[in-house]
Amino acid sequence: MIIVTNQNMTETQWENLCRNLEERGFQIHVIQGVEKRVIGAVGDKRRVDFRYLESIPGVEKVIPILSPYKLAARDVRPEGSVVQVGDLKIGGGHFGVIAGPCAVESEAQMMEVAEGLKAAGANGLRGGAFKPRTSPYSFQGLEETGLKLLAQAREKTGLPVITELMNLTELDLVVEYADIIQIGARNMQNFGLLRAVGRQPKPVLLKRGLSATVEEWLMAAEYILAEGNEKVILCERGIRTFETATRNTLDLSAVPLVKSLSHLPVVVDPSHGTGKRKLVIPMAKAAVAAGADGLLIEVHTDPANAWSDGEQSLDLNEFGELMKEVRKILAVEGKQLG
Amino acid sequence: MIIVTNQNMTETQWENLCRNLEERGFQIHVIQGVEKRVIGAVGDKRRVDFRYLESIPGVEKVIPILSPYKLAARDVRPEGSVVQVGDLKIGGGHFGVIAGPCAVESEAQMMEVAEGLKAAGANGLRGGAFKPRTSPYSFQGLEETGLKLLAQAREKTGLPVITELMNLTELDLVVEYADIIQIGARNMQNFGLLRAVGRQPKPVLLKRGLSATVEEWLMAAEYILAEGNEKVILCERGIRTFETATRNTLDLSAVPLVKSLSHLPVVVDPSHGTGKRKLVIPMAKAAVAAGADGLLIEVHTDPANAWSDGEQSLDLNEFGELMKEVRKILAVEGKQLG
Amino acid sequence: MIIVTNQNMTETQWENLCRNLEERGFQIHVIQGVEKRVIGAVGDKRRVDFRYLESIPGVEKVIPILSPYKLAARDVRPEGSVVQVGDLKIGGGHFGVIAGPCAVESEAQMMEVAEGLKAAGANGLRGGAFKPRTSPYSFQGLEETGLKLLAQAREKTGLPVITELMNLTELDLVVEYADIIQIGARNMQNFGLLRAVGRQPKPVLLKRGLSATVEEWLMAAEYILAEGNEKVILCERGIRTFETATRNTLDLSAVPLVKSLSHLPVVVDPSHGTGKRKLVIPMAKAAVAAGADGLLIEVHTDPANAWSDGEQSLDLNEFGELMKEVRKILAVEGKQLG
Amino acid sequence: MIIVTNQNMTETQWENLCRNLEERGFQIHVIQGVEKRVIGAVGDKRRVDFRYLESIPGVEKVIPILSPYKLAARDVRPEGSVVQVGDLKIGGGHFGVIAGPCAVESEAQMMEVAEGLKAAGANGLRGGAFKPRTSPYSFQGLEETGLKLLAQAREKTGLPVITELMNLTELDLVVEYADIIQIGARNMQNFGLLRAVGRQPKPVLLKRGLSATVEEWLMAAEYILAEGNEKVILCERGIRTFETATRNTLDLSAVPLVKSLSHLPVVVDPSHGTGKRKLVIPMAKAAVAAGADGLLIEVHTDPANAWSDGEQSLDLNEFGELMKEVRKILAVEGKQLG
Repeated sequence: MIIVTNQNMTETQWENLCRNLEERGFQIHVIQGVEKRVIGAVGDKRRVDFRYLESIPGVEKVIPILSPYKLAARDVRPEGSVVQVGDLKIGGGHFGVIAGPCAVESEAQMMEVAEGLKAAGANGLRGGAFKPRTSPYSFQGLEETGLKLLAQAREKTGLPVITELMNLTELDLVVEYADIIQIGARNMQNFGLLRAVGRQPKPVLLKRGLSATVEEWLMAAEYILAEGNEKVILCERGIRTFETATRNTLDLSAVPLVKSLSHLPVVVDPSHGTGKRKLVIPMAKAAVAAGADGLLIEVHTDPANAWSDGEQSLDLNEFGELMKEVRKILAVEGKQLG
Repeated sequence: MIIVTNQNMTETQWENLCRNLEERGFQIHVIQGVEKRVIGAVGDKRRVDFRYLESIPGVEKVIPILSPYKLAARDVRPEGSVVQVGDLKIGGGHFGVIAGPCAVESEAQMMEVAEGLKAAGANGLRGGAFKPRTSPYSFQGLEETGLKLLAQAREKTGLPVITELMNLTELDLVVEYADIIQIGARNMQNFGLLRAVGRQPKPVLLKRGLSATVEEWLMAAEYILAEGNEKVILCERGIRTFETATRNTLDLSAVPLVKSLSHLPVVVDPSHGTGKRKLVIPMAKAAVAAGADGLLIEVHTDPANAWSDGEQSLDLNEFGELMKEVRKILAVEGKQLG
Repeated sequence: MIIVTNQNMTETQWENLCRNLEERGFQIHVIQGVEKRVIGAVGDKRRVDFRYLESIPGVEKVIPILSPYKLAARDVRPEGSVVQVGDLKIGGGHFGVIAGPCAVESEAQMMEVAEGLKAAGANGLRGGAFKPRTSPYSFQGLEETGLKLLAQAREKTGLPVITELMNLTELDLVVEYADIIQIGARNMQNFGLLRAVGRQPKPVLLKRGLSATVEEWLMAAEYILAEGNEKVILCERGIRTFETATRNTLDLSAVPLVKSLSHLPVVVDPSHGTGKRKLVIPMAKAAVAAGADGLLIEVHTDPANAWSDGEQSLDLNEFGELMKEVRKILAVEGKQLG
Repeated sequence: MIIVTNQNMTETQWENLCRNLEERGFQIHVIQGVEKRVIGAVGDKRRVDFRYLESIPGVEKVIPILSPYKLAARDVRPEGSVVQVGDLKIGGGHFGVIAGPCAVESEAQMMEVAEGLKAAGANGLRGGAFKPRTSPYSFQGLEETGLKLLAQAREKTGLPVITELMNLTELDLVVEYADIIQIGARNMQNFGLLRAVGRQPKPVLLKRGLSATVEEWLMAAEYILAEGNEKVILCERGIRTFETATRNTLDLSAVPLVKSLSHLPVVVDPSHGTGKRKLVIPMAKAAVAAGADGLLIEVHTDPANAWSDGEQSLDLNEFGELMKEVRKILAVEGKQLG
């Protein structure tokens, strides 16, 4: 940790600061600069929040040197992690394509889409039973009925199922039915929820928050890892920027960046990331080329009548086209599906 | 609702669209423009999500005309709402100053700060018992012990107490001790939590999310109002932008804007909004001048030794200075404290 | 154009508004909604700014229907434009790789890098002679000497040369030496400069501004096109967002989006877009997969001693690696280099 | 300057780095941390760009300690600068209210508005003769005719005149007519223009760029100061964020922040900052309370028929109301108009 002091710090303030640091177990190295005095405080204290040092009179800035996450860091497992559920493998050269409707709507819908996806080559099935909706008046999901339909679709197709958990109170229910538990963007810093999914055994797909930095995202993963669950998949799904021509701004550079910082696999959701059907295929291809370990794609048998997010859903034909294109880039990358 | 169609829409697509709208109870008005055909679809359907219309082939854009919130809208109560707890009134010309430490740390700290705040003129007491922290390794709050210390400080000073609720599982506990329940920025779209606080009787202070638009913020309030709890206070606490010189960018223009759109009172948190102690007083004054109904201020008896957020906390002397300045602007505004 | 009125608009205000519109040549269609009255005003008035209508008492919102650019729109040339300079072709299935140092530094540097790039397969040479620098104390470029060195490198390698024009006063000088004139991100809305390059015959590469929407970017291109120069290449180089882990956020989804809206070719600059050397190759590949028509890559023979932007420059070996990877994705895309 | 190295830096790389720093005149202090080795490099090298150090193999991060601006820094003139033109004083307890139409439209308009503003208490007159417009088809200003009308209005009212300079080629013309030269937000990093206004004697009002950090804004001022012109006024006019309910997000916290970092006076433009007429008065008041040294307000005699920006212009009655409110807050602040 580097501590920059003001020119007008008094000697008493200086001594207080040094004593404060030493009491907390730091070794102190002082550098006298041209205008400012700087302290290098040595000691692995990443588990403590030292932002409070900035409030000590005479302290101008505190600059941490070590990254604040430990279990998520690349050097914990330099070869990279692989998360596996049945035939679906994500990471380490294995690529997952998880597809399905935004919301589970009916048995007919789920069976038709699941079989179509399986035929086209998807190796995971997504579908929302609990839906986070901006408006209290919008459709909020079929809840347990939706979970049962997902399980039924898994039964029929063998595809592992991923679905979103929104509330602690529904944890047991979702864990019972799902193969992978999704934490949505709006809950990326719902720390109670993160801890809870960290204490159960199923893999967790952690979406990046709308305005989360890469560091905050990795710290959210650290919450899950710190509870003992190592099976975390990160999902880039677009961040909020000034640009309104797309629903979000898909930050594909986060893929190679996160992979250099962390051992966790990273998948990309170009459906939410762009919010526009015509951009999904090009951005899915770009995600593969950027080094992603998988994709999350919204597919609906009849997007024009979807109960939510129809404007960004592909139909089964378009999904077939996506798979064809994605396979070509995967071949270049030397990665295999599943 | 206005629906803009593509030039290359087919007649069959056009007929499908019109039938779809009529089946959902809309009256259709067609405007033939120079290049595009536009539909005005009349009917109060704000409770339904019609974004899916954008996925109908031939539809280019769907533009809602009515605002999506109803209970939060200004015209429900044009004179504005007042939220009252004991002597603390917020809204309708009454101004609340709620102050206290970021986190409850000890009995000595809470009693000293509460008495100091009371003496300086605060009419509400804040303090975190459950703390949302970016890192799993940071101090997470004293939990029930913290709530008890808050209650004890209320006992001693008569100040009503506000504290954050983070998880559904702690709802009963927090409701038991708190006078006002705070929903933090990270939980602004934790819809299960919003519904739960909408079903209990205590007032709710709803912080704006880091990347929430004013419309999304009002929709989050609508979740609470829709469950029957009318006592909602909005709190502007800064949004996330590209600027890193301040912790967040305090969006003061949201105060007069929200007050024109909604009847709900709006308070401002310049401590989180700026993250820098020296900016708290000027921005507190600016908030009053912009028309805010109250302030949320972090105060610590010894900021340099605070367990969290010390760099943005005032000490009691500085808080006294803030009150002196704020009273002057309140006099100009013709508003009264409490 | 759609005009939404307030519920409390008076009849006099209504009549004034209607007269105002009719005087400007609009046909008026009135839609009486449940709560609001809406006007559809028909007439191709895209060349006029009608935002002022929002200031007419009783008018709540004005929503344009037609996009504000005309010459840049896709339907002007649905097959897409190709910009050609010597052997370098960009657009219509032809892919350009323009590479070189951030700043021209010396003859030795330019000759070495230009020959290395040519050998590795680049088909254009970039280099800054006038450098926009945040600090007045930073190196500002070799100016005319730099332009001469670029011309000399072109002489030797046959590679067409692209360089940035910063000021109107240097227009003739830059036009004399350059094959393609670059307008930098900071000058995207320097309208005098846009008009000036629109009146000369050389192709223009127009970088997207740090905080420019796609629509504003296309409007900036419209300034050049409106003066008669049709040879405009757009360049996505990252936008400014809250994320600081990368220098900018490379908005790759803008590539397929712009290509659907406009006939102009789009190239991508992953060097500025990410600001980190290790992210350049993955994002270059992703750009090709997203449908870009070319790349702009910073290459320096000795990045550790570059006079500017060394942290994002590749060396010649790394550039060779980039070309190898890019060729593979180009093969999948069915595009050819040059 | 602090240089953080990677764990896997080789000894040769280490020696190269140290030699490189010493050759550039730095004294080196090494701190051996738990995981990383850190160098404190001492020497006032703020005039050099050391970002290139990040490209030296083994270097992870370079952290500057000194702020990059020198002439703009507060400690150059701790009492703060005052810019004076005739009776208009800005800074040091003097408050300027500069008002007028977005664009100069006609003699009748300018005379009427100037006299009305003078009567209401404005002490400066603004008006655009050259207008930066997103669309090439929008009204671009009356140019020299506009400048002459401004001079005529000054003649009549005694109010000093401020107008925007957009192009180097119009410098002499604008300097001839204007009392204060405005550099617009889009030109904040038009470095040639900054240097040019730094070499002439009239005061310069420098608007903050749409996506400029406070540091970049001060560096832009440094460009002007470094050429010898000390009469620089900064103008906060809103930054671009994700929020679209206002035209920009007015960053009022930048006012006290900049005043703590720099001796330059800061004024606020709530008209562009919010883009909504009804928000102008509350935000003007808030600006005064936050410590601003002046205001820039758009006023039009007939906003509904303004040629540009009518939706954010006050009429003369509203401006009178603004002055009444602003005077009250000025009294509290102990500042005087002019």
